[in-house]
Amino acid sequence: MAPTDLDRLIQLLAKLPGLGPRSARRAVLHLLKRREALLVPLADALKDAAESVKGCTVCGNLDTSDPCAVCIDPRRDPSLICVVEDVADLWALERTAAFRGRYHVLGGTLSALDGIGPEDLNVPGLVERARGPEVTEVILATSATVDGQTTAHYIADCLSDCGVAVSGLAHGVPVGGELDYLDDGTLSAALKARRPV
Amino acid sequence: MAPTDLDRLIQLLAKLPGLGPRSARRAVLHLLKRREALLVPLADALKDAAESVKGCTVCGNLDTSDPCAVCIDPRRDPSLICVVEDVADLWALERTAAFRGRYHVLGGTLSALDGIGPEDLNVPGLVERARGPEVTEVILATSATVDGQTTAHYIADCLSDCGVAVSGLAHGVPVGGELDYLDDGTLSAALKARRPV
Repeated sequence: MAPTDLDRLIQLLAKLPGLGPRSARRAVLHLLKRREALLVPLADALKDAAESVKGCTVCGNLDTSDPCAVCIDPRRDPSLICVVEDVADLWALERTAAFRGRYHVLGGTLSALDGIGPEDLNVPGLVERARGPEVTEVILATSATVDGQTTAHYIADCLSDCGVAVSGLAHGVPVGGELDYLDDGTLSAALKARRPV
Repeated sequence: MAPTDLDRLIQLLAKLPGLGPRSARRAVLHLLKRREALLVPLADALKDAAESVKGCTVCGNLDTSDPCAVCIDPRRDPSLICVVEDVADLWALERTAAFRGRYHVLGGTLSALDGIGPEDLNVPGLVERARGPEVTEVILATSATVDGQTTAHYIADCLSDCGVAVSGLAHGVPVGGELDYLDDGTLSAALKARRPV
């Protein structure tokens, strides 16, 4: 048993995704052995994040400024809005550096099982943005799951009278993927959407 | 790409054992969504730990007091010292509540590969404690690896003129273990050390 003061730290760390009680104990010992190099900077970085990071009122991204750095960047194309489920998806798209428009974070997907309805997602904010004069296209980048695609259809309906083009991500063979390991749905989608070489 | 201020937090979290860049990003989003319930308490707990946790000068345990809670507990048997490699091992033994003596943390094992020699381990402190009038037995609870057993032999040599009994953990079949999955070394050790039922 760890001393009680450390127990609390272990319990808190064990609540992080990917860590359990055992790995949280290892992490705490790792931190205590690297006090100046890791423990103190991590405590400070967490405190800073708790104080300074907020949700962007325009797109829902998390950043230290509001509106966020993406929304205020003048080099980004204001005519494109990419709709994502979560901030994690926004960060994933940003890492590719393939999209130079702006984002809109829904905060989840419609889900009958989890009791998430349209009122739980930030769709009104999206409709309002889509009515803006400079927006010409909304890209629906929700997951290729049943819930994600249901949500995409619902949003496409909501946007039908906003005068914007609505598109979705292409389905197909993942880059670097082997055909043999692909599921039937992806393979038939890739075949249907075949392109001239 | 996450905003730069968050990037630093992600990089620090990714240095914890069991977390990589991807799981650190997930953890940061998890924390930011639970600001009051998790992020602020975790930052405070880390700060507290950085300020208050220190190594016990007697046994090498990590605790908020020095000597640690185990060393100053009057209900614990001062005649027994259990030698462990690391604080993690001490905590593991404490969780079993099967040992009511005191501990001595070596801080590692002898290892030719990693360049760890006798001078890197806290053996002089152990020898000094073993010469104390109340100590009657030293239990060597180092790992059952080559390095761990080498270290145990080295320590047994160092303790040979201290007038204490030196013992080691029993080898055998793990409780709940199936014979079929055990390695040959453990099986033959368990057979050699067989006991009347």
